[in-house]
Amino acid sequence: MRLNELSSPVPVVDYDIASRNIRRLQQYCDTHQFRLRPHIKTHKLPFFAHEQCKAGAIGITVQKIGEAEVMAQTGLADILITYNIVGREKAERLANLTNFARLSVAIDNERALESLGWAAHRASTPIGVLVEFESGGNRQGVQTPEQAVALARAILGHSGLEFKGLMTYPTTTKTAEFLRESLPQFRKSRIEVSVVSGGGTPGAYQTHELAPVTELRVGTYIYNDRMMMAAQAANLEDCALAVLATVVSRPTIDRAIIDAGSKTLSSDLLAPGQEAGYGLLPDYPDAIIARLNEEHGIVDLERCVRKPEVGERVRIIPNHVCVVTNLHDQIYLHRNGDVLAQLPVYLRGKTN
Amino acid sequence: MRLNELSSPVPVVDYDIASRNIRRLQQYCDTHQFRLRPHIKTHKLPFFAHEQCKAGAIGITVQKIGEAEVMAQTGLADILITYNIVGREKAERLANLTNFARLSVAIDNERALESLGWAAHRASTPIGVLVEFESGGNRQGVQTPEQAVALARAILGHSGLEFKGLMTYPTTTKTAEFLRESLPQFRKSRIEVSVVSGGGTPGAYQTHELAPVTELRVGTYIYNDRMMMAAQAANLEDCALAVLATVVSRPTIDRAIIDAGSKTLSSDLLAPGQEAGYGLLPDYPDAIIARLNEEHGIVDLERCVRKPEVGERVRIIPNHVCVVTNLHDQIYLHRNGDVLAQLPVYLRGKTN
Repeated sequence: MRLNELSSPVPVVDYDIASRNIRRLQQYCDTHQFRLRPHIKTHKLPFFAHEQCKAGAIGITVQKIGEAEVMAQTGLADILITYNIVGREKAERLANLTNFARLSVAIDNERALESLGWAAHRASTPIGVLVEFESGGNRQGVQTPEQAVALARAILGHSGLEFKGLMTYPTTTKTAEFLRESLPQFRKSRIEVSVVSGGGTPGAYQTHELAPVTELRVGTYIYNDRMMMAAQAANLEDCALAVLATVVSRPTIDRAIIDAGSKTLSSDLLAPGQEAGYGLLPDYPDAIIARLNEEHGIVDLERCVRKPEVGERVRIIPNHVCVVTNLHDQIYLHRNGDVLAQLPVYLRGKTN
Repeated sequence: MRLNELSSPVPVVDYDIASRNIRRLQQYCDTHQFRLRPHIKTHKLPFFAHEQCKAGAIGITVQKIGEAEVMAQTGLADILITYNIVGREKAERLANLTNFARLSVAIDNERALESLGWAAHRASTPIGVLVEFESGGNRQGVQTPEQAVALARAILGHSGLEFKGLMTYPTTTKTAEFLRESLPQFRKSRIEVSVVSGGGTPGAYQTHELAPVTELRVGTYIYNDRMMMAAQAANLEDCALAVLATVVSRPTIDRAIIDAGSKTLSSDLLAPGQEAGYGLLPDYPDAIIARLNEEHGIVDLERCVRKPEVGERVRIIPNHVCVVTNLHDQIYLHRNGDVLAQLPVYLRGKTN
């Protein structure tokens, strides 16, 4: 089957590009002796998680227990959950999961620790715990080395929990700063920090210059997207996923309507000051996907000399590929336009 | 089961509010003798489609064939597809669907008509066709009355297709203008326009003052959302759907992290100049959901006197409810916090 026989809109993945992206980052990690623990948020597929592990990754990263459950059920044995597990219901699922996979969890507060402690009492195997610290992302994580040491000490007080080390997102120069201040305090407290886990695709290949982490968590590198291109972390030929859409209307000379709207591409935009629009049309680089309704993409053709006709298929490199795979029940894997497989996106929608 | 026993994040729908919203618009339509044909893009549920029809709706509106397929398979008998059907694959599915439901389709171009004509030859029952015209939405639809008449004439040339009338979105004063110019031309051409279908929740209750349509297509009114509140088309007590989330981190005094990110709430924002943030926290009205990552909502608490603690459940009225239901495999129906049903969102992800 050829790609153009698929009903549009549909996300398709070039298998050779994805495989090359997997190999390239693994090589970088091997060269610099980083352990690679890919984040599955981008592909959401057991298939590619296994391919990443076969290439040399030590395990995978997920954010939600529902994601860990699917991955454990499909043979992934080493899973890091970089998310505060809070509450009894999730703690129980975590405890159950220890029957099927080696688990670790990154937390930043006592309430999450309480839940982990409760889970540890019911777990089949010890649960590893990392302390998340903030590296300037203004998201979450403890704010000071003192808080990190205090939380690590509290973790050590729980039988069934194993303190593993530190985790942050993204890896920045602030990561190095935090480590420079905190690692001596851990040594003084005789607390071993065996893992320092950093993350983020844009700076992945600069990690060795950024901070002394031991482990890389990266997701987007496998597919790449327009955001990675804007961050100069990828070129068009590194983008493995495209959405195929069809022009369904040409109401005016300068406007095309495609059958891919926000339910297909998401509403994620690039950062202010970067390229406009809701995706890149590589075959019509001067076209701008100016607006999205749920099922309509409104494409401004004003700057295009050649303009697509009704019925024509167009390729779209999405702005943010991770949210696109979350919108679709399946993706199609291809090589040179030949469909190799239809892959259900098993982890789609696993938000809890 | 109580709502607070559900694993978060989770979308929940107050059944009584949704039912009241259904009744209220039906009453308006009955009073003004509009036929109501609700758009199912908001709830994506056969359940509510049937409730809307039981209340008096003449049928439903969908945008994609995949949506029509699920609805026909679950007993909905009268379906309008307001979307250009382009291509053989979709035409074949359309023809098959005529075995199970009365179908009509709104189109704006010859290429879509070609596909409908192909389908009509293989259909079990005639396919109704409407011509979409533009009412200032700068999306799609024919641009002039002359184009509308020409396309209608072309439709009449196909056996198996029945020209039904005109369709537009949204209903505006431009709708009235277009009808004022085009209806006489249709009469002069002896082409009967039995349906004029308008749509859009924000102006739904003003339809009788806006334009002489015969039919209303409206979706959001059943749940409402922050956009409808901003448009003064709904109050907080008319919002039937809320997302329940949990505070999983309080890294600083003025920042809370909730477990609802863009995979739960979508990245849709209100229009520039309207309220900021990615949703309304009715119990913390001064809090701003300032940023979303895929699984993290970053909440700015600076203006809050009372601040939510880690572990606390918070309710969120989403900015745009239609894209939220597209992100979740199920929603929970409740009355006063008692769970009445878990409803799989059968039409979720049906983008083609």
